[in-house]
Amino acid sequence: MKPFHKVNEQDLAAFEMIMPGRVYAGDAIRDDYDHDEMTEYGHFMPDALLLAEDAAEISAVLLYCNEHNIAVTPRGAGTGLCGGCVAIEGGIVLSTERMKRVLEVDVKNMTATLEPGVLLMEFPKSLEGTGLFYPPDPGEKSATIGGNVMTNAGGMRAVRYGVTRDYVLGMEVVLANGEIIELGGKVVKNSSGLSLMHLMIGSEGVLGFLTRLTVKLIPEPRANLTLLAPFDDLDKCVQAVPQVLACGCEPTAVEFMEREVIAAAEEYLGKQFPDVSADAYLLLRLDGPSPELLEPALETLTDLLPTLGAKDVLLADTDERKSSIWDARGAFLEAIKNGTTSMDECDVVVPRENIAAFVKQSVLIGREAGVRIRSFGHAGDGNLHLYICKDALGEEEWACKRESVMAALYDYARELGGQVSGEHGIGHAKAGYLRQSVGDTQMALMRGIKAAFDPNGILNPGKLID
Amino acid sequence: MKPFHKVNEQDLAAFEMIMPGRVYAGDAIRDDYDHDEMTEYGHFMPDALLLAEDAAEISAVLLYCNEHNIAVTPRGAGTGLCGGCVAIEGGIVLSTERMKRVLEVDVKNMTATLEPGVLLMEFPKSLEGTGLFYPPDPGEKSATIGGNVMTNAGGMRAVRYGVTRDYVLGMEVVLANGEIIELGGKVVKNSSGLSLMHLMIGSEGVLGFLTRLTVKLIPEPRANLTLLAPFDDLDKCVQAVPQVLACGCEPTAVEFMEREVIAAAEEYLGKQFPDVSADAYLLLRLDGPSPELLEPALETLTDLLPTLGAKDVLLADTDERKSSIWDARGAFLEAIKNGTTSMDECDVVVPRENIAAFVKQSVLIGREAGVRIRSFGHAGDGNLHLYICKDALGEEEWACKRESVMAALYDYARELGGQVSGEHGIGHAKAGYLRQSVGDTQMALMRGIKAAFDPNGILNPGKLID
Repeated sequence: MKPFHKVNEQDLAAFEMIMPGRVYAGDAIRDDYDHDEMTEYGHFMPDALLLAEDAAEISAVLLYCNEHNIAVTPRGAGTGLCGGCVAIEGGIVLSTERMKRVLEVDVKNMTATLEPGVLLMEFPKSLEGTGLFYPPDPGEKSATIGGNVMTNAGGMRAVRYGVTRDYVLGMEVVLANGEIIELGGKVVKNSSGLSLMHLMIGSEGVLGFLTRLTVKLIPEPRANLTLLAPFDDLDKCVQAVPQVLACGCEPTAVEFMEREVIAAAEEYLGKQFPDVSADAYLLLRLDGPSPELLEPALETLTDLLPTLGAKDVLLADTDERKSSIWDARGAFLEAIKNGTTSMDECDVVVPRENIAAFVKQSVLIGREAGVRIRSFGHAGDGNLHLYICKDALGEEEWACKRESVMAALYDYARELGGQVSGEHGIGHAKAGYLRQSVGDTQMALMRGIKAAFDPNGILNPGKLID
Repeated sequence: MKPFHKVNEQDLAAFEMIMPGRVYAGDAIRDDYDHDEMTEYGHFMPDALLLAEDAAEISAVLLYCNEHNIAVTPRGAGTGLCGGCVAIEGGIVLSTERMKRVLEVDVKNMTATLEPGVLLMEFPKSLEGTGLFYPPDPGEKSATIGGNVMTNAGGMRAVRYGVTRDYVLGMEVVLANGEIIELGGKVVKNSSGLSLMHLMIGSEGVLGFLTRLTVKLIPEPRANLTLLAPFDDLDKCVQAVPQVLACGCEPTAVEFMEREVIAAAEEYLGKQFPDVSADAYLLLRLDGPSPELLEPALETLTDLLPTLGAKDVLLADTDERKSSIWDARGAFLEAIKNGTTSMDECDVVVPRENIAAFVKQSVLIGREAGVRIRSFGHAGDGNLHLYICKDALGEEEWACKRESVMAALYDYARELGGQVSGEHGIGHAKAGYLRQSVGDTQMALMRGIKAAFDPNGILNPGKLID
């Protein structure tokens, strides 16, 4: 493939015609746009930044870029963790940050239609008073919903409600050649040909540019409970999970957390965690239509957890107590990041039963390499977040250790039947690990699909499959 | 594309080497294999029928057929409704009917791994005593699970639990060139590259041959309730659905049924339906961990339904009463089929709110054309099954009326934001309607994907996208 064309004055003028006043180049582009949340993966400044406002503009821009061989990197809020929205091949960054309208909340059909740039934390405001809610709950609340869809983000409530994929009903997508297509709709069942929509979900912008989406809403549970179960060690804690899931209490979230990570969050937040008695905790959330209807599940868990090694079962029954626990959980990533000089991340997903084995092995891998690893994650769905910390290591040593530790983690995940990414995606940072994980045949199929959608390869080049 | 090679003696000998004693040709192939459940769409006898027993055989057969340009039609139990498993281009039918082992039920990970030929009605036997169940519940219980996956079958419980897609975690697939790939695994979250697995779901065998699948199981609800609400007319009945769905009672199934269809089922089964008071009924099922925990939802519905026009709310509290209702519901398709000389089917899905409008319009369309249309369906998810009955019409008149009625139905569905198929798929019978519905651009993308997976086009030719 021939090298991409570098954006010049003429191109900028053409873009300016399409979206007057929203085209930036050179020093006018803030540094924020040269990275995502993982600066470890490098800084790449685009030739130009375009802030789109609608599908028609995006269509015109893609048509132009496709004809002029200009690389296009889609970007939402830039909160990704694998460099997916970073312009590693230069060209333009095409941002949805101004496309943040909730276009419709359809109470009768229980759907909402949104522009892709709506922030996860803003969306609930549009649903107030409808009795409906949008269940996916990725940790990063300042992410865009469009970004969530394009990485198939998961989050803590996935145990009960599933991931972003499970809530996407329809989308409008602009193809590389500027054509606009509609996929799915306000329908909750669909068996009408190859599912281009499900192919688009999690495709990280390499196949098309998401410009509108319709999501499914469900009745909002009117009550919830938070339970915290301290355990002597992580192994016992995680071993308890299969029985918790099988007991019929339908937990919304099942998280594990370790003392060291909690301590980091306490320091970061300047706020105490409500229990200091244990090295490991299982954190559970239950949702239901009323407090009374949650009682049987609460009783079941209060009886069950001690038989599985829990030292206690603490019910967080006030808002303050609940928030002291969930705020700590929500701050883990930032707290770990804050406590080291740089870090790399591993977001593997393994069969639920193998979480304990994986965490145990990760400790050994870190110890052997002399690298500090901190982990936390979604015990209920087998999705772990491990952070390999640079701390005081020199650049060269870090590069070397980081590579060997990451390789060892992915190798072991594969051995346990796991996958490279549970919810953060591949971007450019994990592309090599994906290749190793799925093999040449599947990579060739993905490239074949890419060629059918984007024959000139202008959409998010260098990501996922390149 | 050059015409397919017709299977000859030499080819049969080659197949016989691969799977001795399980290759049939000529009169040795039963007539059953020349159609599915919709004989209206024609009879097509394959050159040969092969009963595979494992992925290695299927791999060897596909490798041979790919090299010799022989059309391959995959087939499960042959219960489809759009001719998807019928060899319209000749060549071989490759059947999974002997691949019916449940390979593993993994209680800790809450998964089951199966061969594709396991029948939907057989699968629950393997789950007995585990406390787990497989929620998808397509009406045709003698279908294979593999067929369910390849059409993304839905069923009555989709309102609460979702469709087949939502339960597929992993699969083994043989590609057209004989290569075997593994997609997904025992993981409940996955954001690892383009989702070839979700592309494969609902692809009706045009991209690869499914040889093993891993599905998600959930804890079995220990109690259930059936409610029957008679209404004066269908319009009122269906208009009640959005509020039923929004009231927080989490119904498992919400079906609508009309007097005439119930009467046909009564006659077909020789068994009375427990109520004769009304022209239209809403049928509801609730699932829960215990009868006590279902009571609040029952109360809510008993209060709500009369305010929405229900003349009564009948609780089916004995197994006998339950089965008299659900047996009738289960017999609708056969009863309608039994009551006419031939029929065509329309399986559209529309936004839930538009069901009433669609059913009303279908009555007008039928009346205007002088054709009897019977309908029933999944009120809770907007998926309707309409049967256009030939009755005493002559062949020519039938062909003409059928075409115009079907076109009018699909046109109106499109107008309402609907899709061609909610759960039965496209096969060859609906390929033209799919093309009209999604347009040339999407068809070209589907063909591009097809070319990446099956460059010689040997897999299920003439289906879905041809």
